[in-house]
Amino acid sequence: MSYTVAIAGATGAVGVEMLRVLEERGFPAGSVRLLASARSVGKKMKFRGADVVVEELRHDSFKGVDFALFSAGASISKEFRRSVTDAGAVMIDNSSAFRMEDGVPLVVPEVNPADAKLHNGVIANPNCSTIIMLTAVAPLHRAFGLRRLVAATYQATSGAGAKGMEEMIAQSRQVLADEPIAPSVFAHRIAFNLIPHIDVFLDNGYTKEEMKMLNESRKILHHDALRVSCTCVRVPVARAHSESLNMEFEKDVTPEQARAILANAPGVTLADDPAAKLYPMPLDASGRDNVLVGRIRRDVSRDDSKGLDMFVSGDQLLKGAALNAVQIAELLV
Amino acid sequence: MSYTVAIAGATGAVGVEMLRVLEERGFPAGSVRLLASARSVGKKMKFRGADVVVEELRHDSFKGVDFALFSAGASISKEFRRSVTDAGAVMIDNSSAFRMEDGVPLVVPEVNPADAKLHNGVIANPNCSTIIMLTAVAPLHRAFGLRRLVAATYQATSGAGAKGMEEMIAQSRQVLADEPIAPSVFAHRIAFNLIPHIDVFLDNGYTKEEMKMLNESRKILHHDALRVSCTCVRVPVARAHSESLNMEFEKDVTPEQARAILANAPGVTLADDPAAKLYPMPLDASGRDNVLVGRIRRDVSRDDSKGLDMFVSGDQLLKGAALNAVQIAELLV
Repeated sequence: MSYTVAIAGATGAVGVEMLRVLEERGFPAGSVRLLASARSVGKKMKFRGADVVVEELRHDSFKGVDFALFSAGASISKEFRRSVTDAGAVMIDNSSAFRMEDGVPLVVPEVNPADAKLHNGVIANPNCSTIIMLTAVAPLHRAFGLRRLVAATYQATSGAGAKGMEEMIAQSRQVLADEPIAPSVFAHRIAFNLIPHIDVFLDNGYTKEEMKMLNESRKILHHDALRVSCTCVRVPVARAHSESLNMEFEKDVTPEQARAILANAPGVTLADDPAAKLYPMPLDASGRDNVLVGRIRRDVSRDDSKGLDMFVSGDQLLKGAALNAVQIAELLV
Repeated sequence: MSYTVAIAGATGAVGVEMLRVLEERGFPAGSVRLLASARSVGKKMKFRGADVVVEELRHDSFKGVDFALFSAGASISKEFRRSVTDAGAVMIDNSSAFRMEDGVPLVVPEVNPADAKLHNGVIANPNCSTIIMLTAVAPLHRAFGLRRLVAATYQATSGAGAKGMEEMIAQSRQVLADEPIAPSVFAHRIAFNLIPHIDVFLDNGYTKEEMKMLNESRKILHHDALRVSCTCVRVPVARAHSESLNMEFEKDVTPEQARAILANAPGVTLADDPAAKLYPMPLDASGRDNVLVGRIRRDVSRDDSKGLDMFVSGDQLLKGAALNAVQIAELLV
């Protein structure tokens, strides 16, 4: 059995990784169709050693397509949803367009794979920070019952696409050369700086990005009583997100129990040996499929044994986006 | 009335700022004595337009000195404590050597100025992250009673001194030029990376730096029941620390009340207008005396109104070290 896979937004940072991940994982793709905006038409990208020419993304692009991986922004996903599903393809969408819609499964394959089967033509890929957090947290939730989570993120520039990474590099060169800087992708200079502002601000003072960590987690875990407060911060790092997580559970938990569970959890690599200076870092997480988890310790701010702190790093373009999308497709083949 | 002020570690990143801050604030220093290790002897530094020659730090360096500001590491502070106090000088020590010692006041002038008067010859400057946090948090504690704080830090390379900042810059150039890197000051590459490891690891899985946030805060606030859990992370930023703070209070609190208090708090500048893209960032905090506070919002993970989240940035070399030390001396003149 082989499938036809389309990638919409094929030339973007996530699209490039989607194509690479399809090949690397040996996804049974008989053919791939690379779709992008008019200005990328004619570009060639390699798939299994052969050139594939980028075509224009059009409403008639999906005839014969089995899976359409979308990473071209929420408005494009909305515009093409009907054309994809009418053509009989399953849309696996990396944007925020449909994530909270009833009837659209929001899936992290290690966490809620069964949800993927319940789709009506569209499956949503969660927010990158949410995927990375839940890949590490869900195994602990299953064992101990997560009640509340306080998170602070350290999010890489790849979250704003290839142009986000390029702006960080260009600005870094400019700062080192003492040249003037004009921020474009980010609201302020990101080189040698931090920006506690990702996505737009809401009336409650949180950003949309921060509220995704709450709302998407509840949906993925089927856990409406979950409490999450998050602060999302952009940092001058290329492509791996990190998160400091303070967790409160229903049951008692020890760091040793947590480590034992995470050592055997899918999609997770334990990086927790402080004596050997081993802990999650974006440099080590970059280019890796698994989310690194470490700095696991009993929360010293609690009298009981229901609290844990830990630190995670995961590749934003892979597990946070392209890899998770391809894993969703794998659930359906 | 004028005083003789000695700076031990005068050529270090903090020492340089101490001299500058003394001049800028018009501290009544009749003379300054710049002390350093043998290899810096003979260097000249400017104070009020005149050259001051760096002398070797020796046990007989403190005759006639009123205030000895130390920023040369904990072991140097311990070695010279007796010589300083025997000479009748007051040691204001930026190291961790005496911070938790009974009888040694640990002072943030905006928070617990009265403690400074109770010294027995030595006053300790708190850890930089603790100073920056408490300058912003103490006014809220006084009004609402702080119970528990969960913090994640984003700490600048200046926390490791001038050589920390230099390593970040040198490594950034090397990464951009695709040259090999050999970490020296930090345990791993810091350029375009994060390191969740500052100071040494303790048996409970926290670092010493993280436990300082708990222990020093309790001492400074005279609040032994305070709960703090902290994750300290080094980030590729030059000289301002940032912190994501999740706070639980005894009393109900609204963001509006918190803003009103912080708008009038000493040492604090409110930077909290998300619609105008105004929030604390290290770039804006660098070179400023005040700690920037923003992103103030009701903690959405709680049912009650006893929780707040906020984000702070403060210059590590100024309020986190040199400025706070000079402010302590000012309390005594």
